[in-house]
Amino acid sequence: MRINKDTVLCMSLAAKPSNFGTRFHNYLYEELDLNFMYKAFAPHDIKQAILGVRGLPVRGCAVSMPYKEVVIPLVDEMDASAQEIQSVNTIVNTDGILKAYNTDYIAIQKIIEKHVIDPKTRFVLKGSGGMAKAVAFALKSKGFKNGIILAKNEISGSALADATGYVWKKELSDTDEADLLINATPVGMQGAGYENETAFLDKEIRNAKVIFDVVALPENTPLIQLAEKYGKKTILGSEVFALQALEQFYLYTGVYPEKELFHAAATFSRTL
Amino acid sequence: MRINKDTVLCMSLAAKPSNFGTRFHNYLYEELDLNFMYKAFAPHDIKQAILGVRGLPVRGCAVSMPYKEVVIPLVDEMDASAQEIQSVNTIVNTDGILKAYNTDYIAIQKIIEKHVIDPKTRFVLKGSGGMAKAVAFALKSKGFKNGIILAKNEISGSALADATGYVWKKELSDTDEADLLINATPVGMQGAGYENETAFLDKEIRNAKVIFDVVALPENTPLIQLAEKYGKKTILGSEVFALQALEQFYLYTGVYPEKELFHAAATFSRTL
Repeated sequence: MRINKDTVLCMSLAAKPSNFGTRFHNYLYEELDLNFMYKAFAPHDIKQAILGVRGLPVRGCAVSMPYKEVVIPLVDEMDASAQEIQSVNTIVNTDGILKAYNTDYIAIQKIIEKHVIDPKTRFVLKGSGGMAKAVAFALKSKGFKNGIILAKNEISGSALADATGYVWKKELSDTDEADLLINATPVGMQGAGYENETAFLDKEIRNAKVIFDVVALPENTPLIQLAEKYGKKTILGSEVFALQALEQFYLYTGVYPEKELFHAAATFSRTL
Repeated sequence: MRINKDTVLCMSLAAKPSNFGTRFHNYLYEELDLNFMYKAFAPHDIKQAILGVRGLPVRGCAVSMPYKEVVIPLVDEMDASAQEIQSVNTIVNTDGILKAYNTDYIAIQKIIEKHVIDPKTRFVLKGSGGMAKAVAFALKSKGFKNGIILAKNEISGSALADATGYVWKKELSDTDEADLLINATPVGMQGAGYENETAFLDKEIRNAKVIFDVVALPENTPLIQLAEKYGKKTILGSEVFALQALEQFYLYTGVYPEKELFHAAATFSRTL
């Protein structure tokens, strides 16, 4: 990579940055010979960082935990994807105008389409954070009517249920059967403190048909391993991560890489 | 170059960025295997850009025309090199504290030492902008007493003369002989509109002993070419540029590259 004065900078802002995005985007810039570079930052001050994105200027930035909501008053425009769920994971700077998107929401809509899940399917979605919001609103937008938001946090759990028309529950009862189980909590994530736990009970997994884990690292979480052991259909968090990064890549560069190159970049970004 | 989440970003802020700094610093980062990267920016808004340097954070940034004075109220501390001349060309960010330096001033002091110019030498310094300030104060700090600030702009010219104890003149008279002529204007600079002009008259050059041109691009300006034709000792702007960049490199990384590597980086930065 040769950086020059015309190289366009994109970045990510997160309290605990990973190397995923940096590897994914720089791999594609290099393969596609785009004069861009990408780097993760752990901002000292999120407001100053966003002013820097506008003023330097930086072309685009990914926004991760814990900044997905605090950046809302700092941008100029909200795309429907971010407006709907009041959560931002991407900001695009066009001539000093900052527009916010949520490519997790867009990616999850695409995943529901791709895996052809019948909207009549009953689901349980575990979690009420930023990713759970993206999943719940994506399910709603795809016509899913029959679901439970399973969350320990009553405030965010019931708020998300109210906003989407689903039911909030703190715990599942024996009669709460669902064919689609979705984990949108950090349970099973490497380094999160519950690496070896599964977000759903053995019995719940056995009774379901499709298990969707949004945790991307490791790719095969304990939940996914158990679901595969029982022969269930699985959807992996690594697919969400790669698809949302692809949408960001398009927003920043105007280019959609071909399928094969995209898969190569996704694989490269996971091999740290 | 492999960028990862821990890569440290340095940058330059200028209305019209060149590739000099980007090439110089990235060349040395690569050769010395430092996990740094460098990129020039033409800021959309200088205040927001400096907030970005603080908040992202960015480790260090060069400041060029026309921002060398407007950044003063935006930093936390002024090194003596910037304080003395009230002009900043470098900002270093240590844990959110921004300290301003002027490495042009430091570089010119080193050049005066290296070329062993007697402080009794009478000089004429042409210009009253940021670089002229750095030269005038460096000469003063090295004990030069006898000099003329030659500047069309009465306000900045007489202010600089007053601050340094030299004499301001709008034009030279026949009796104003000087052994040291210094050009600190854009005359002779590529792309500045006076590419083929010399900052001093043929007669003045013939009567002098040392000609110092701070213009760095091209390396051999018409003034330098004429001085060499007359067998005068010359000091080139490319030496100023390289030395001030070396000081910046040290401030950002804590590393002084060896002489040979430094010269290789300076040569590389000029071959665009």
